[in-house]
Amino acid sequence: MPPPPTAALSSSSSLCLFPFSSYSSPKKTQLGFCPSFPFTRLTNVTPTRRLMTCSAVSIEKETLISHRPHSFLRETDGLDDGSVRSRFQRMIMEVQDSVCGALEAVDGAGKFKEDAWTRPGGGGGISRVLQDGDVFEKAGVNISVVYGVMPPEAYRAAKANVTDQKPGPVPFFAAGISSVLHPKNPFAPTLHFNYRYFETDAPKDAPGAPRQWWFGGGTDLTPSYIFEEDVKHFHSIQKKACDKFDPSFYPRFKKWCDDYFYIKHRDERRGLGGIFFDDLNDNDQEMLLSFATECANSVVPAYVPIVEKRKNTPFTESHKAWQQLRRGRYIEFNLVYDRGTTFGLKTGGRIESILVSLPLTARWEYDHKPEEGSEEWKLLDACMNPKEWI
Amino acid sequence: MPPPPTAALSSSSSLCLFPFSSYSSPKKTQLGFCPSFPFTRLTNVTPTRRLMTCSAVSIEKETLISHRPHSFLRETDGLDDGSVRSRFQRMIMEVQDSVCGALEAVDGAGKFKEDAWTRPGGGGGISRVLQDGDVFEKAGVNISVVYGVMPPEAYRAAKANVTDQKPGPVPFFAAGISSVLHPKNPFAPTLHFNYRYFETDAPKDAPGAPRQWWFGGGTDLTPSYIFEEDVKHFHSIQKKACDKFDPSFYPRFKKWCDDYFYIKHRDERRGLGGIFFDDLNDNDQEMLLSFATECANSVVPAYVPIVEKRKNTPFTESHKAWQQLRRGRYIEFNLVYDRGTTFGLKTGGRIESILVSLPLTARWEYDHKPEEGSEEWKLLDACMNPKEWI
Repeated sequence: MPPPPTAALSSSSSLCLFPFSSYSSPKKTQLGFCPSFPFTRLTNVTPTRRLMTCSAVSIEKETLISHRPHSFLRETDGLDDGSVRSRFQRMIMEVQDSVCGALEAVDGAGKFKEDAWTRPGGGGGISRVLQDGDVFEKAGVNISVVYGVMPPEAYRAAKANVTDQKPGPVPFFAAGISSVLHPKNPFAPTLHFNYRYFETDAPKDAPGAPRQWWFGGGTDLTPSYIFEEDVKHFHSIQKKACDKFDPSFYPRFKKWCDDYFYIKHRDERRGLGGIFFDDLNDNDQEMLLSFATECANSVVPAYVPIVEKRKNTPFTESHKAWQQLRRGRYIEFNLVYDRGTTFGLKTGGRIESILVSLPLTARWEYDHKPEEGSEEWKLLDACMNPKEWI
Repeated sequence: MPPPPTAALSSSSSLCLFPFSSYSSPKKTQLGFCPSFPFTRLTNVTPTRRLMTCSAVSIEKETLISHRPHSFLRETDGLDDGSVRSRFQRMIMEVQDSVCGALEAVDGAGKFKEDAWTRPGGGGGISRVLQDGDVFEKAGVNISVVYGVMPPEAYRAAKANVTDQKPGPVPFFAAGISSVLHPKNPFAPTLHFNYRYFETDAPKDAPGAPRQWWFGGGTDLTPSYIFEEDVKHFHSIQKKACDKFDPSFYPRFKKWCDDYFYIKHRDERRGLGGIFFDDLNDNDQEMLLSFATECANSVVPAYVPIVEKRKNTPFTESHKAWQQLRRGRYIEFNLVYDRGTTFGLKTGGRIESILVSLPLTARWEYDHKPEEGSEEWKLLDACMNPKEWI
């Protein structure tokens, strides 16, 4: 007998959502995460890097709740104490509201459905999904806050020089917003963005040891057809957000994005990129919080004007079929390569939140090859050979 | 610039299609394979078992050819010498012909398109795809013959007691037929089957050492709606084929099938099973060749009557949407769990042949839950709780 509606949320007694990784680098470790949504984007994977086993990480199981709380932070954290974690949580909640509001306005008909959950010891999430609207086929905007414990090895690798004693398990905090937006019109592009903040406590048996923290995230555009003015607009907004903080950010994070969203077996990127970064802690923490906030607040101005412009463009069945094929590629990337998605699936994340990133519909044709010089061919070309758009 | 049509076949200088695995068991090794199609179905994966690195296996790159050859065997093998490899090759070629003929007859309109390729040192394959016919949305029936070299460790694990000297790389031969059939009508089920034969030579520096060989394969049914008489018919034909050889085969291979086609993150099987086996070499080799032949020849009588019966059944948009959702599950299984597919994608197999297993169209709805007691719910129930059908 299939489970009742909530059983999927409680079928695992020890949810394990975090793909921990250890580096050969003594400088820092990289802890991506996929708290019930694929906003882990682990990158720069080398042979020396490996995922730790699921059993190394433990997070409590989640419970669906009927009303979203004001905060998912533990009370001991202070609900609004000015800490980076509380300000980051407030930021992602506000961005979830503003993005969903802007998308409902663009759509005109579709409304977001909300699912919220908590975990007994703190943390939780809010999934919002708009499905089969007038403009959007499927749009998911999720936030999540997670308290967990990571293996001491990860912390030790990060701080190898700080202490000789073997620390115990390290509590961590993670919060993020993640979103994938699939419009119906084949001339309106798919958008993905996610921004996340990660913080460790000191190891339980070494209370004086320093905390670790870092930021990660990015925003990237996946059109089926290229309108150069749209792609330029999108990249310009990314660059503008980056340039406010550091002129090296845009070129560095643009390349990182092209490298990450790579479908190796096709030798194509899934789309036309944007920005992507992870492990960011080399700069001032306040500066990076502002940077992540700026990036997240840039989603609406970067994307909404494009959808407004393209949402009613007339199209043929052939345009739609090509969009569906490109959505197949999106699925191939997410299910085969995206570390957050694949790890989340294998370790018991909230499946519906993880897979809301997949489009409502997709298509796989045998051996499809666009005609040379066609608009479809130009898109494929740009996915195979990343361009500088601005 | 996108590659010309054949570039995908020559973009890798050293194709590596074989997921080698080593066991803790000293008795035998298990070498599944995915020669340009997902007919590797590695099973019983335990923590002690791991895939060897791609670089451990080498196969030459393939070249598209305009006419299919009579045989893909090396001339030194003898083209029709009565050996098991030559008889197995003849069998899969005949089955490809008979299955494609039967499917074209059922479809009435669609015709198979054929792509054939060879490799310079022997081996090759024939992909046949019928797309967008009257009855079939997508039907792929592929055969493949591969000569390669496997790492000595695999052979040594297999024959640990035979020799103390460290052997060199071990040449192997593999051949198989693999097929996935997706009909349009949501009441007509999807079918997958594959049968394969694997043989090692003696290690190059130990010419007197014994050869290894084994058979693998299976046939399984994936309906969107349950017609008990169809499922009973399908399983009865599988059982009949098994019972001709060994009464223990059907129960053993039925369970193996249920265990293999398991979508862990959903806690569902992808369909209603059938039979599946691997590493089969405990019985007489002639007997197992006959058994594999019987199973492959049972595909048409097991499947075609069901499609004939259901291909014109009237259906609603809602039936079609449910079929599309189940196809989404099929894709999740193939891209996330199927070892042959995932390994093939990551190591340079012929992508179009590997991914012809995916349906033409599929759908992902957020948090879809069939109404309790509905026909959709019954299918889901049977996928979550495998039944004895006969």
